[in-house]
Amino acid sequence: MKIENVEFHYLANDTILDIGDGSQDALLVHVRMDDGSEGWGECEAAPLVSIAAWCCPMSHLACKPLKATVIGFEINGPADIYALTDRVRRNSFDLLQADHTLSGIDIALWDMLGKKRGEPVWNLLGYANAYPKTAYASQLFGDTPQQTYEKAVQSREAGFRAAKFGWGPFGLGSPETDIDHVRAAREGLGPDLALMIDAGTVWVHDVARAAAVLPALREAKAVWLEEPFTSGALKAYAALAQQDGCARLLAAGEGSHDPDMAFNLMDFGKLGFIQIDTGRIGGISSAKKVAEYAEKTGVVYVNHTFTTSLALSASIQPFAGLKDSPWCEFPVESAPPSRLLTKERLLPDANGQIRLPDAPGLGVDINPDTIARYGRQVSIQYENQMLWSSK
Amino acid sequence: MKIENVEFHYLANDTILDIGDGSQDALLVHVRMDDGSEGWGECEAAPLVSIAAWCCPMSHLACKPLKATVIGFEINGPADIYALTDRVRRNSFDLLQADHTLSGIDIALWDMLGKKRGEPVWNLLGYANAYPKTAYASQLFGDTPQQTYEKAVQSREAGFRAAKFGWGPFGLGSPETDIDHVRAAREGLGPDLALMIDAGTVWVHDVARAAAVLPALREAKAVWLEEPFTSGALKAYAALAQQDGCARLLAAGEGSHDPDMAFNLMDFGKLGFIQIDTGRIGGISSAKKVAEYAEKTGVVYVNHTFTTSLALSASIQPFAGLKDSPWCEFPVESAPPSRLLTKERLLPDANGQIRLPDAPGLGVDINPDTIARYGRQVSIQYENQMLWSSK
Repeated sequence: MKIENVEFHYLANDTILDIGDGSQDALLVHVRMDDGSEGWGECEAAPLVSIAAWCCPMSHLACKPLKATVIGFEINGPADIYALTDRVRRNSFDLLQADHTLSGIDIALWDMLGKKRGEPVWNLLGYANAYPKTAYASQLFGDTPQQTYEKAVQSREAGFRAAKFGWGPFGLGSPETDIDHVRAAREGLGPDLALMIDAGTVWVHDVARAAAVLPALREAKAVWLEEPFTSGALKAYAALAQQDGCARLLAAGEGSHDPDMAFNLMDFGKLGFIQIDTGRIGGISSAKKVAEYAEKTGVVYVNHTFTTSLALSASIQPFAGLKDSPWCEFPVESAPPSRLLTKERLLPDANGQIRLPDAPGLGVDINPDTIARYGRQVSIQYENQMLWSSK
Repeated sequence: MKIENVEFHYLANDTILDIGDGSQDALLVHVRMDDGSEGWGECEAAPLVSIAAWCCPMSHLACKPLKATVIGFEINGPADIYALTDRVRRNSFDLLQADHTLSGIDIALWDMLGKKRGEPVWNLLGYANAYPKTAYASQLFGDTPQQTYEKAVQSREAGFRAAKFGWGPFGLGSPETDIDHVRAAREGLGPDLALMIDAGTVWVHDVARAAAVLPALREAKAVWLEEPFTSGALKAYAALAQQDGCARLLAAGEGSHDPDMAFNLMDFGKLGFIQIDTGRIGGISSAKKVAEYAEKTGVVYVNHTFTTSLALSASIQPFAGLKDSPWCEFPVESAPPSRLLTKERLLPDANGQIRLPDAPGLGVDINPDTIARYGRQVSIQYENQMLWSSK
């Protein structure tokens, strides 16, 4: 069967706030094959730019819009979906945004194939089991240590077994303030919950500044320290990983927009945890390659996701069968277009664990009312041609 | 003074061919300050997508359109231009295409500042001299070894002292065919001209396949082997660099869209040559950081460029003062919108060398007739707002 049509739905909240909350908008991808099979996917961040990467005019042989490669491509099994990734990367390698657009299309194709065959995606990927993952409540630090403490208490009372705090004031002031926040988080969670800390790339390349918080992280028994540096700062990651008690403590990778970037973080940045956003790395096909490499090299794979239940399901599928990768990011503060996208939400169970649906494809159903309510109209015109217009 | 307006001009040839020729379109950037100062820059590849990155709605705190950061930003000297790069990267780090758009804006700001102060950009960058660079005629392999031979003869007869052949059939068939092309190129150039070979990432991660052509490269005294693998395949680069006679032979880097990617290729990929496209890495500010690092670590810096004299000037400025980085890419097969953009073209002199103009800014003047002739109309609408419309 051939890919006949790809539709993009740009959802956005009525007001977009200038805060670190990626759930305020979403770019949904709806793929339809020539035999009527359908699937849904989602691209991470900047919906309008990813639509432009779909429909823009060709610049040259290696800078084509995605539609030039995708429409008409024959998909009859998993190998064809992997092959599409290679073809898109070859045809669009000078088009930087292409990896985001590809991500949503690839996810939608896996969903489509799973639905067509009546199998969950993790099964198509070759996993016999989908292990439950312990959800960590992923949230921003409070503005003050007291607020961080209160958020931690809320996470514990909500039944989570793990929580991650990031961004907000962390890393911007003195190490002492950071340490106060880490201690407040641990105090609020109590001794038994797992605690993760996310520095949000705040120290760029500054190894010494990052090292200043290490004793507090050890004291608080943090599971990991995430993104002390920018995604590509491999030398800084390697230097920090060599510090006392820092082996296998570092986590990063959400910025990876192809598998090579993730491989490099593992090989040269000496990570303990590799965090992959399926909506950015090129979709499930690319994420699965990273999961295989992580398993081979003893690195723990973690999903990165901050939007919908569709994106959450897609982000877990690539490592569903890896028993030694037990954590799962779960966004607790999500805005309406993301929260309301699917008919049922993927939520932690009484043990604080997320279980992937044992249902065809990604196992979630899209709520058309949410598309109608939050869908935004986009049109892109070039000369006298309408390149894109939302239906 | 503050940045008051940024105008984008999307130039494209009447027909865009499906060939490896990046000069068929161009995205020009025209920056105007509130005191009337002006400058011009250029972004590499996919003009429409880069315009979308300028004007799209915000997704969240770290995914803002470039206009949100750029308009109103205060620029009074070089340090402010560097600071703008940091600010854009912080505000738009989830917007993948942002680096391309930033590139053109950054270049235009250096041009503007140079013109305002009556100094060439290389001077503003701290260089006392702009050393002439030996231009290598950058071109595609012929379809057959005979055609490659003829192209090499033409390059020699045109007065070039160096030539690079890339893409086309190279690497796609057997190693023997590749070797025939390399020998034909050397034969056509004669014994005295420098020869560079560009594999255009064709072997992805396959070290053994790349190694199969090494003896022929040694025999032909190739100066470098460029991009045997995809930009991020650091382990493969490192493995090939360890082969006999391969130390300091590898060249790569054109895909780098931030300085970290280039640093990683030098530190971990063990390159001999780092090739930077100023229109992609984030502009002159980011390219200059790579040039400084290359000088410090003994790697030869080379520009990557395939479009206009404006882009060529911008691509040489960051390493103008590095005496030990003597080569300069010069596209010999350029299409009208690129060839005709500037009133005078930057061409090799009788010694086959390119000299940067000792003139304010980038030292080239834009031809308004070319914009009028090849400028294309783009409009982008979101809900009831016109986000972008070409003037």
